[in-house]
Amino acid sequence: MNKCAILLTADCVVTQNYKREIIRDGAVAVNQGIIIGLGARADLEKNWQAEKTMNLGRALIMPGLVNAHTHLPMTLLRGIADDLPLMEWLTRHIFPLEALLTPDMLRAGTALACAEMLRTGTIAFNDMYLNEPHVYRTADACGLKGLASESVTRYPSPGYGDPANALDTLRAQAAELKGNPRLRYCIAPHAVYTTTPALLESLAGLAAELDLPMDIHLAETKTETATCLEQHGCRPVELCRRVGILGRNTTAAHCVDLTEAEIALLAETGTVAAHNPKSNLKLASGVAPLSAMLKAGVRMSLGTDGAASNNALNMFSEMSFCALIHKGVHQNPTLVPAQTVLDMATLGGAEALHWPGLGQLAPEGPADLIALDLDSPNLAPMHDPVSHIVYAASGQEVRLTMIDGKILYENGKYHSLDYPALVKEAGEIGAFFRSRK
Amino acid sequence: MNKCAILLTADCVVTQNYKREIIRDGAVAVNQGIIIGLGARADLEKNWQAEKTMNLGRALIMPGLVNAHTHLPMTLLRGIADDLPLMEWLTRHIFPLEALLTPDMLRAGTALACAEMLRTGTIAFNDMYLNEPHVYRTADACGLKGLASESVTRYPSPGYGDPANALDTLRAQAAELKGNPRLRYCIAPHAVYTTTPALLESLAGLAAELDLPMDIHLAETKTETATCLEQHGCRPVELCRRVGILGRNTTAAHCVDLTEAEIALLAETGTVAAHNPKSNLKLASGVAPLSAMLKAGVRMSLGTDGAASNNALNMFSEMSFCALIHKGVHQNPTLVPAQTVLDMATLGGAEALHWPGLGQLAPEGPADLIALDLDSPNLAPMHDPVSHIVYAASGQEVRLTMIDGKILYENGKYHSLDYPALVKEAGEIGAFFRSRK
Repeated sequence: MNKCAILLTADCVVTQNYKREIIRDGAVAVNQGIIIGLGARADLEKNWQAEKTMNLGRALIMPGLVNAHTHLPMTLLRGIADDLPLMEWLTRHIFPLEALLTPDMLRAGTALACAEMLRTGTIAFNDMYLNEPHVYRTADACGLKGLASESVTRYPSPGYGDPANALDTLRAQAAELKGNPRLRYCIAPHAVYTTTPALLESLAGLAAELDLPMDIHLAETKTETATCLEQHGCRPVELCRRVGILGRNTTAAHCVDLTEAEIALLAETGTVAAHNPKSNLKLASGVAPLSAMLKAGVRMSLGTDGAASNNALNMFSEMSFCALIHKGVHQNPTLVPAQTVLDMATLGGAEALHWPGLGQLAPEGPADLIALDLDSPNLAPMHDPVSHIVYAASGQEVRLTMIDGKILYENGKYHSLDYPALVKEAGEIGAFFRSRK
Repeated sequence: MNKCAILLTADCVVTQNYKREIIRDGAVAVNQGIIIGLGARADLEKNWQAEKTMNLGRALIMPGLVNAHTHLPMTLLRGIADDLPLMEWLTRHIFPLEALLTPDMLRAGTALACAEMLRTGTIAFNDMYLNEPHVYRTADACGLKGLASESVTRYPSPGYGDPANALDTLRAQAAELKGNPRLRYCIAPHAVYTTTPALLESLAGLAAELDLPMDIHLAETKTETATCLEQHGCRPVELCRRVGILGRNTTAAHCVDLTEAEIALLAETGTVAAHNPKSNLKLASGVAPLSAMLKAGVRMSLGTDGAASNNALNMFSEMSFCALIHKGVHQNPTLVPAQTVLDMATLGGAEALHWPGLGQLAPEGPADLIALDLDSPNLAPMHDPVSHIVYAASGQEVRLTMIDGKILYENGKYHSLDYPALVKEAGEIGAFFRSRK
């Protein structure tokens, strides 16, 4: 008999492997953070001697979800202003409050985001924010995986001061994360409309020099397109092509206002698109042409965006929106089926993070997994596990979240953060923000 | 000091009363199923001597939600077939499986629906199904409130056999529920396309004779409109007007394919519309003109439809869809604000069920309330309780559900049903259905 650290057993294991195998009465053997056995429970119980056996019973084990686009510290701002015109929301509420964010607040907001992600089954994220070291250090301490990037614009920023310092700041942040097993660095021009072609080019050059991926907001609104046409004589996707940003190492968030030719270009260049249905609806950006992108072969992932425009970081909720809205808007119930959506939230997330091995359960892969409570009334009876994951689950059926073999959340308890202290601190920061509105 | 049965205290009480008062550090005094005190915690603690005091602490007390349109036993069919063309879904999957439903299955499916509603904060429903006595007797035993109706078509049905017997069957069901404090009867022609004008007229007549409300599926799809035009030379809303179905006692579910004149007619007649955004998206019926209906003054409520086309009975999820989709589709972030959505799910539900007093917390009103856990990471910090209820909550933050002063769900335990036995039975029925596909 072989030895392993943990043997998990459950009524159902959704692997998301290349065959999309679903194992009834299955088991996962974990050692040193790696899945070393996966299959029928009876076989694994025979073959593995575990230091710790967790018989989860009526549970569904699946890969942890990957949030392909977010701004973690914005948890502190969720619900502080909603239902407003975009520019009023940004300039009168979000920007002035973001200017008040101290390092302590960035840490608290990130830790709160990590708690919510662990609670709702997300194991990895793609974050872009200001003063990013506070984000990635906190997320690292909380045990999550992710891409981290300092958002670069042509304006001064709390992250790098004068824009002339931006590239040096990014080099230093990239150096700090070099070799980190769970947090990887990424180069992020904020968007076409907040940068210049020269800045975009220099950031693309830095990404190539350091062999790092890129992240950008792209084609989010019609206003972005109109501004780009006016300032640069071309649409945003074309501008990105010209400055060398499109390609397999780039994840483009939103991708709402696209022409067919632009969809074809994203597919051809291998650019990953991060679909953010809830944020696009809430901010009234529109409905991205997801089924056209899927049909064209664009590499698709799914993200929540920041909690101020969602207002959650719950990938289960995001999956249900992703699966439902395109059917209704295009009046075709066969569009965007459940398996496609689950693929976007797992394997697509691995592509958005440029991190092969994430988003699936497979031997030799990382033990990044979650377990859902199948005794939750909304999951009974279970005819089709993938349908339940996408359409019926709320996200709070998650009983257990494991990253690299470590249990970080289990039945209401967090093992990598002091949750009661965190909620108290978040409440105090919230009260401060409301006092400054 | 006055005496009461239960005194509940919590950090926040969202009343949904006519002033939409929100009480910080509030309390609710309950006696004999009625709210007899509501206000600041300090005042109520001074004035009331309670048999049982429940200090909920970091919780939000609010009225239980009202699901304005559903088909409860369909919980058994959720996820058995998705992502299919509507007619294939109905005729190859749903109808053949519904034909297999025994009374035991109807009871189990309804009990499972009640468990899910209690778990996610719904205290009342508007149900239309086949063989309805099994539904309302089960819901009665589970302690929920609701309108119950046998769905009538021009075809034979397990509920009444030959359509000639339908009216007698309805009379008998209405007589059975007469005087029931929590379950009320309703007359439900299934839809324009499954009945005849003569049948619609006779059902409207029966409703008038027995002084009962009516419930109908109306203007759900373009196909319904086309069929109606072909068969009757008018659109569905006009047909309903002609046969006397529109009016303050009628709740019309879906209301997707409407003209402006039809919206005006619904408003003018006081007909209540039950908006079902998730089902309309999943079945690709489209997006109902909610903001036009609101603007015209149509009495609006919110429902999940059956679990086979949702795939949940979770009114929190339904609220988030309701608040988000219209903003995105019409590219206007100010449409359908959070307070409007909460009103639809509470006070609007009271209108859909023709039941004044439901959907709000007020002295002398029924003690139908729920408590959400404010320590859930997605609800921290809380800038705006109504925003959190609509946008951030998943529904599984519900810690306590009380109907008529009775605690029916609390922290994972159900007090009016044998949940472990129910989940086991639902699993067995599910396996039987899969064996017959």
